[in-house]
Amino acid sequence: MCSNQTNEIDVKRHSTAHVLAMAVLDLHPDAKLGIGPVIDDGFYYDFETKEPITEDELKKIEKKMKKLISQNIDFEKTELDIDEAKEKFENENQKYKVELIDDLKSEGEETISIYTSKDFSDLCRGPHVKNTKEINAKALKITRLAGAYWKSDEDREQLTRIYGVIFETKEELDEYNQRLIEAKKRDHRKIGKELDLFTFSDLVGAGLPLFTPKGTLLRDTIVDKIQTLQAKHGYEKVTIPHITKKELYETSGHWEKFGDELFKVKGQTDQEFVMKPMNCPHHTQIYASTQRSYRDLPVRYMETTMVYRDEQAGELLGLSRVRAISQDDGHVFCTPQQIESEVQNIVSVIREFYTSLDMFTEGNYWVSVSVRDPKEVDKCLGNPKDWDLAEKTLEEIAKKEGFNYKIVEGEAAFYGPKLDFMFTDALGREWQLATAQLDFVMPERFGLEYTDENGDKQTPVMIHRAIAGSLERFLSVIIEHFAGAFPLWLSPVQAVVIPVSDKFDDYGKNVVEKLQQAGFRAELDNDSETLGKRIRVAQKVKTPYMLIVGEKEITDNTVAVRSRDNGDEGVISIDEMIAKMQEEII
Amino acid sequence: MCSNQTNEIDVKRHSTAHVLAMAVLDLHPDAKLGIGPVIDDGFYYDFETKEPITEDELKKIEKKMKKLISQNIDFEKTELDIDEAKEKFENENQKYKVELIDDLKSEGEETISIYTSKDFSDLCRGPHVKNTKEINAKALKITRLAGAYWKSDEDREQLTRIYGVIFETKEELDEYNQRLIEAKKRDHRKIGKELDLFTFSDLVGAGLPLFTPKGTLLRDTIVDKIQTLQAKHGYEKVTIPHITKKELYETSGHWEKFGDELFKVKGQTDQEFVMKPMNCPHHTQIYASTQRSYRDLPVRYMETTMVYRDEQAGELLGLSRVRAISQDDGHVFCTPQQIESEVQNIVSVIREFYTSLDMFTEGNYWVSVSVRDPKEVDKCLGNPKDWDLAEKTLEEIAKKEGFNYKIVEGEAAFYGPKLDFMFTDALGREWQLATAQLDFVMPERFGLEYTDENGDKQTPVMIHRAIAGSLERFLSVIIEHFAGAFPLWLSPVQAVVIPVSDKFDDYGKNVVEKLQQAGFRAELDNDSETLGKRIRVAQKVKTPYMLIVGEKEITDNTVAVRSRDNGDEGVISIDEMIAKMQEEII
Repeated sequence: MCSNQTNEIDVKRHSTAHVLAMAVLDLHPDAKLGIGPVIDDGFYYDFETKEPITEDELKKIEKKMKKLISQNIDFEKTELDIDEAKEKFENENQKYKVELIDDLKSEGEETISIYTSKDFSDLCRGPHVKNTKEINAKALKITRLAGAYWKSDEDREQLTRIYGVIFETKEELDEYNQRLIEAKKRDHRKIGKELDLFTFSDLVGAGLPLFTPKGTLLRDTIVDKIQTLQAKHGYEKVTIPHITKKELYETSGHWEKFGDELFKVKGQTDQEFVMKPMNCPHHTQIYASTQRSYRDLPVRYMETTMVYRDEQAGELLGLSRVRAISQDDGHVFCTPQQIESEVQNIVSVIREFYTSLDMFTEGNYWVSVSVRDPKEVDKCLGNPKDWDLAEKTLEEIAKKEGFNYKIVEGEAAFYGPKLDFMFTDALGREWQLATAQLDFVMPERFGLEYTDENGDKQTPVMIHRAIAGSLERFLSVIIEHFAGAFPLWLSPVQAVVIPVSDKFDDYGKNVVEKLQQAGFRAELDNDSETLGKRIRVAQKVKTPYMLIVGEKEITDNTVAVRSRDNGDEGVISIDEMIAKMQEEII
Repeated sequence: MCSNQTNEIDVKRHSTAHVLAMAVLDLHPDAKLGIGPVIDDGFYYDFETKEPITEDELKKIEKKMKKLISQNIDFEKTELDIDEAKEKFENENQKYKVELIDDLKSEGEETISIYTSKDFSDLCRGPHVKNTKEINAKALKITRLAGAYWKSDEDREQLTRIYGVIFETKEELDEYNQRLIEAKKRDHRKIGKELDLFTFSDLVGAGLPLFTPKGTLLRDTIVDKIQTLQAKHGYEKVTIPHITKKELYETSGHWEKFGDELFKVKGQTDQEFVMKPMNCPHHTQIYASTQRSYRDLPVRYMETTMVYRDEQAGELLGLSRVRAISQDDGHVFCTPQQIESEVQNIVSVIREFYTSLDMFTEGNYWVSVSVRDPKEVDKCLGNPKDWDLAEKTLEEIAKKEGFNYKIVEGEAAFYGPKLDFMFTDALGREWQLATAQLDFVMPERFGLEYTDENGDKQTPVMIHRAIAGSLERFLSVIIEHFAGAFPLWLSPVQAVVIPVSDKFDDYGKNVVEKLQQAGFRAELDNDSETLGKRIRVAQKVKTPYMLIVGEKEITDNTVAVRSRDNGDEGVISIDEMIAKMQEEII
């Protein structure tokens, strides 16, 4: 089945998927075809074959495709009555296409469009190129094989999926290849191992990472940074358990929403518990534990805690997709009048945090102001006046802050509008990381209250916010963005002191202590290895500074500085080194 | 059925339980009797009656008991053939006694002893007083009613349990009553509410506490203290998820041991997960994630993380017994030669931590050195030579430290000997809080290794240690021990600054900032309440220092100090106040 394409390159990509099907049918005339849609940078097509398609065949398939493209084949569209179309594909023994036609029929379709290129014709909405000469064979590459269930249903047939990429120019393909090499080098699973940040255990299970001391230091440094920034704005830490009776989620409405993703928990009795997939419902219960007056508001909670979601085993990937998700979470309960200053606080924390990572720079971020679809205002819960005020406030903040922002209509949640922060990493990939979401619904569901100036009961507004979001996903992004070479403030070890021989160990220890007293994470490396080897080890684990000490350094009370990023930086005093590091962190 | 008594007062307590049965039979002639054993300070007896025994009746029962005691009734022992005994109780319609006789018969008993007092006779091993004149009726009190399942089996009949206390003298009963009043005042659930430390929610569930900002601050302060002390000894933080495949516990052996207490977790697939009831198996997997050499040992992990145990709903009590247990956990992996210095480190941390609470004082603690039962050495797993060395090392450390210690034979775990630290609280109750346990078994079960000096593979020794243990239980103990008036270092708010009127708010804020800059947790209370009211509020939440500021204090740059413990302490400069608090903390 074909999806709608809009831009020129996507039309070419989709036409190339048809060429892929032609090539595979040439090599496997018995192949049953699944679907062949466009994806980022390219396309795929699913096949069922008697003889399995092997990795080795991919080169051959690519060659065949290039040959087909060079034949200047026309693409022709015809419309068929749906029953005629079904008969055609039945005759061709294409059972998956027949099933798709049946699906379309049950949806009320009466005619079907078919695209024919040479002797191959495919059920397809199009559009397509007129002729394969529009496709640049030099910019084509078949990339990989994978297994995929028909209709993504684990109970259906497993097909073979062939992925490919195609661009307008050979240069773009070269760039793509270069990006792939770079992405492989930066793969957070590889760097995580090299830097000894985290591990997985078969006994514990997939998607359940175990963080080593260095990885925990990295996590804690991020969390400390966020919590310190937030504490300035009056956020206070709270602590909740990881399970709850399901009644909590029946009240919040999440029981229905999360469904299969919820991990269910059973003890010895009939009581049914669930592992929390988010923290907001628990936090409402702390708010609700005492009477609140307008003078107590805003109430601001923060907590870094794990939530659990039963992601499918096949979708788990390093830290990018896990089942135990550490959320840097926070919730504000406030009056409608306080929305502005509270969102302003959150935005300041986001700006300060991402600036410390040098990620909040022009061209590398944008902000989505997600508001109601003007045509679907009725579908949104809560008071329309609150919505109006909130949407206006969010845009005003984005404007006042000078953000690169877009108003995105229809992207608000049903419970409130939001600001989402998108960042572009060193490989040009875009990630939605930070967010501030207003919520007019949950406080009401839980019957939260405060007494206003007139002694009347009012419902507070709730603001959900994430700075780093899921720590695991955030780590996978920044490990790859920095290729493990974190900014000084974030590096698990900030300086390693290397004595040129064991005669200088005492002085080395002395330097380590001075750095530690100044608040830096410093270590001594006096292993019985050569100086060169020890420098290479420190460089490999991306230690920002290697401080080499020998006879001369003792005499002068100095260190010979080797920087991860700039190499040899000369000899300076210990105090100068401390000042230099302090300056780099501020 | 009667249990063995050893000391005089327990003999009297048990005889008084018989008197209780006599009194109840007098008021409820149809009563079926369960068991009536001795407990701390007294006794109980279980009954099944047609008309329920009411709270109001307890006074009447106590009065009747006192009357019976005053009748100088003899206790007489007779021995009966077991079948004769059964017939006797069958005739008396005492079905529970008959069941107990059947149980004894199936265990091979042939004769049964019966104690008779007046027209009441009870199946009982004794011993008893000769005559009720040995019992001091003035020192008797019937305390409460409760429900209890026959044989503690939820599927059996529910009986009514009547509790009483009896002492040698009236003075002891008065002291007991006084202790009860004190315990009620100090109840951590009551103080927890007054100080706003934690809450429970019906929607979340029983045994699942939610910690408010103040309670979280209290937890974090304890954890920070322990982790700072441990970091000095090379402990490093790690982070693990709260669930695991059950295979982890099958390997460790805990699957069998924990059984019903384990919370089982299920997602969408057949994969069975469990919530961790302890952390050691997870930590072994971090150790096992890389090759270790003797030069890398000891490896020391610490982590404060929640474990989950399905305690029975009826046993849950405030923070004392919960289902979500925050463990201040830590594990050391070392060579047998390193046991001494590692246990020494742990002991130093325990001493320093409990000294900071003023709980490590002569007469208020003792140390149990738990070793093998010399008769059952074969039952212990691991190398006997390692055991010998370890037991000797533990005793030597206890001796060298000048601890008040006892060698307790047979108290070692099957996997290794241990040191347990017992502390007595302000109400005279003893708590086992800290522990250091050697483990010769788990490292082998998980195939943990290190390479020794000769390049051979060796199995490390594991040391489990707890300083505060379960944070929830620890909090329940210290909240009651201190009656909420924590030492300065631990108080969630250390000083509250109270301006006498709003004219002095700015100066008040200035004082708060100076205290915060010096690292103290200080707050301003400028609520529109009278000075007296604000002082009472601060006193009620046990704030160590109330600093009152007005005209005179601004002029002199001072604060008027009111201490929680000593009342008015006069006027001193802000710098003096900071110095005073710093001194109190060190």
